[in-house]
Amino acid sequence: MEYYQLNQVNLVTYLQSLPEVQQLFSSFDDLEVQEINDGNMNYAYVVTNTLDLNQSVFVKQAPPYIKVLGEEWPLNRQRMTAEINALNYQSSVCPEMVPEVYYQSTSMSVLIMQNLCHHGILRTALIQGRYLPRLAENLSTFLAETLFYSSDFALPSEKKKAMVSKSANSDMCKITEEFVFTYPFEHHDMNDYNPILEQSIIDSIQKTPDVRAHVAQMKYMFMNKPEALLHGDFHTSSVMVNEQETFVIDPEFSFVGPMGFDIGALIANLYLNYFSHAHNSSAESVNYSQWLLQTIDDLWYKFEGKFLLLWAEHEQSAQSAFMGKDLTGDSHQTFRHIFLQQVFSDTLGFAACKIIRRILGVAKVADFMQFDDQKLRAKLETQALKMATTMLLNRHVYTNIADVNKLAESVSSDTLK
Amino acid sequence: MEYYQLNQVNLVTYLQSLPEVQQLFSSFDDLEVQEINDGNMNYAYVVTNTLDLNQSVFVKQAPPYIKVLGEEWPLNRQRMTAEINALNYQSSVCPEMVPEVYYQSTSMSVLIMQNLCHHGILRTALIQGRYLPRLAENLSTFLAETLFYSSDFALPSEKKKAMVSKSANSDMCKITEEFVFTYPFEHHDMNDYNPILEQSIIDSIQKTPDVRAHVAQMKYMFMNKPEALLHGDFHTSSVMVNEQETFVIDPEFSFVGPMGFDIGALIANLYLNYFSHAHNSSAESVNYSQWLLQTIDDLWYKFEGKFLLLWAEHEQSAQSAFMGKDLTGDSHQTFRHIFLQQVFSDTLGFAACKIIRRILGVAKVADFMQFDDQKLRAKLETQALKMATTMLLNRHVYTNIADVNKLAESVSSDTLK
Repeated sequence: MEYYQLNQVNLVTYLQSLPEVQQLFSSFDDLEVQEINDGNMNYAYVVTNTLDLNQSVFVKQAPPYIKVLGEEWPLNRQRMTAEINALNYQSSVCPEMVPEVYYQSTSMSVLIMQNLCHHGILRTALIQGRYLPRLAENLSTFLAETLFYSSDFALPSEKKKAMVSKSANSDMCKITEEFVFTYPFEHHDMNDYNPILEQSIIDSIQKTPDVRAHVAQMKYMFMNKPEALLHGDFHTSSVMVNEQETFVIDPEFSFVGPMGFDIGALIANLYLNYFSHAHNSSAESVNYSQWLLQTIDDLWYKFEGKFLLLWAEHEQSAQSAFMGKDLTGDSHQTFRHIFLQQVFSDTLGFAACKIIRRILGVAKVADFMQFDDQKLRAKLETQALKMATTMLLNRHVYTNIADVNKLAESVSSDTLK
Repeated sequence: MEYYQLNQVNLVTYLQSLPEVQQLFSSFDDLEVQEINDGNMNYAYVVTNTLDLNQSVFVKQAPPYIKVLGEEWPLNRQRMTAEINALNYQSSVCPEMVPEVYYQSTSMSVLIMQNLCHHGILRTALIQGRYLPRLAENLSTFLAETLFYSSDFALPSEKKKAMVSKSANSDMCKITEEFVFTYPFEHHDMNDYNPILEQSIIDSIQKTPDVRAHVAQMKYMFMNKPEALLHGDFHTSSVMVNEQETFVIDPEFSFVGPMGFDIGALIANLYLNYFSHAHNSSAESVNYSQWLLQTIDDLWYKFEGKFLLLWAEHEQSAQSAFMGKDLTGDSHQTFRHIFLQQVFSDTLGFAACKIIRRILGVAKVADFMQFDDQKLRAKLETQALKMATTMLLNRHVYTNIADVNKLAESVSSDTLK
């Protein structure tokens, strides 16, 4: 089907034309179309049968431009092909954590999927201080399964290489290369600083050659380490939750890249949320801050444990190992631990870049922006930037997440004095 | 044109049918076809006009199998497409160092090119102890230019990503993954050990978990670091030389991989040649050994200097830098030096794997095999394996090639005692 743009007027007719959608609604006579304005890139609608509210779908379409900026900001529709590709992959390895897809079309750049109406955005839940007992368990499973099964440890090398080509998403990668790894570090016109954030803090990043060189290393790694099929934009607004369930959404930045980029994005946003609570000395905030650190700790250790388990099980059942036969019985273990230490370092480096770009770059986080008080925001921003700089420069020194948590606590309490 | 296999009988008719070749010969009546049996993979011929020996071409065709093993060992003809792709790229950046291509056909998997009849194989020249005053200068230029211009420092990111897909060469990469990085380390049936090489030396590699883990890291890096369009098999039999000129040939293993893999392959083979001379205490051998070390030293420093210069010039003329604007004037330099230190570590790691595989794996080097004396060979092999192990495990510790040369000297003289 040739591409055309869906809208409130033609959407129901389009849905009714699709056999995959016909079976979801008992009738198309009483559908309500609601446009969702959360996203910046794409059009999104919820379509519900007003006679039976359980009959509801979420529809997403990528226009050949950035939605919020309009047609004068063209952007390839390949991003929806990448999203479809990623969703298909993720649901093949971790189906319980991605929305069910009812229909997909790369020619129309359309996805029609499960409406997650009983779930809220993770970032919002964290800002509200909601406890999510399954969060670390679920997200560590998602990360371990999606990253392991698309790596060279699970795929024959020719399939892995074919996946790299098939999953190319260069326009979206370029956005990350520029908006995450370049502009925030060079005082670009697109940047947006809190006017009362001290210049010395900004300079400590933009004008410190060591920091700049380490950021450049992370950018280079982002572009030169196709380890696994990533989500590509794994922050806390790309996750929908309730107490029982966790869903990962919006993989439009998906490509084959470094494992630490997905894990780092998530951890960065959890630390940003941590600083937004930890400055408050109420018992409630203290408890919630501790829960956040515990969640980060759990997330890493559970990820590591699950990844190692998948790896060991896979090589045992395949009766062959990436590194070849283990003649002493401990070579495999040695390599696996060195490998995960490398993923950990990468994670810290990427987390640092992600934290910095959310403060010095154009895209902000609600965790901090919820505060109208610029002075409070500047304090939190300073804490986060200090933590990010230390994480970045010492990413090869840290060997466990507990020490990174201690850094967060120390940075947060230091600046309180 | 549909693929068919060329041979001594039909080759002249085929050549005569090609306009690009017609102009090279004054007549096709007196051509002599000589089959060249050096290569393992492909058929090769030299075709010369017996009435004018200056009219001569080199013809190479890839059959859909490994030539020396026959049709029961199928191998995709994609390798010739990769070779053509690499030659086109190399001649675009460094035309003076690759043979001139007169005609190429991916459908016929054929290359017709300059016959380098006034040049010999570098490995042979080194075994003969010939001094090549231009070698380091030329090969460092080739490495700097081919690696820089295909990197993210020179190419827009979307072009770089397109090159990765276009240059995929997965069957040949798989051969390297197995024969360089796996089999030699696991006591595989394909391995071929000198019968009097001590088992303890073999075990010090195959049964040392740290060594195995580091080799696995290099294998993983080979598969997960698409930095630049490599030659892919850059040993001393892939170079043709005389006193004035240096030509790089046979890039059939070409793909987008880690820069250190090409540099490491070359340095590994130079060190192997070094051990083959250094055991001999004659003045001639001592002098030649020193020339070899000096060549290795020159090769690295000239490569580094040229790469840095290309980088600085490119960013100056493009008025934009990979890492963004330099707000202090020394951030670019800091990154460039960190980057080249990383390439240096990778080079040592890959060189180590290449040395080991030439001793424990199936493919041997004439530098050592020229000696019928198994005991002498075992001594040289032991030296080379010791050096490789140290280089591999300490690749992040070494900061300059002079120290690696000292290691070679010390290993070589130690075992002489």
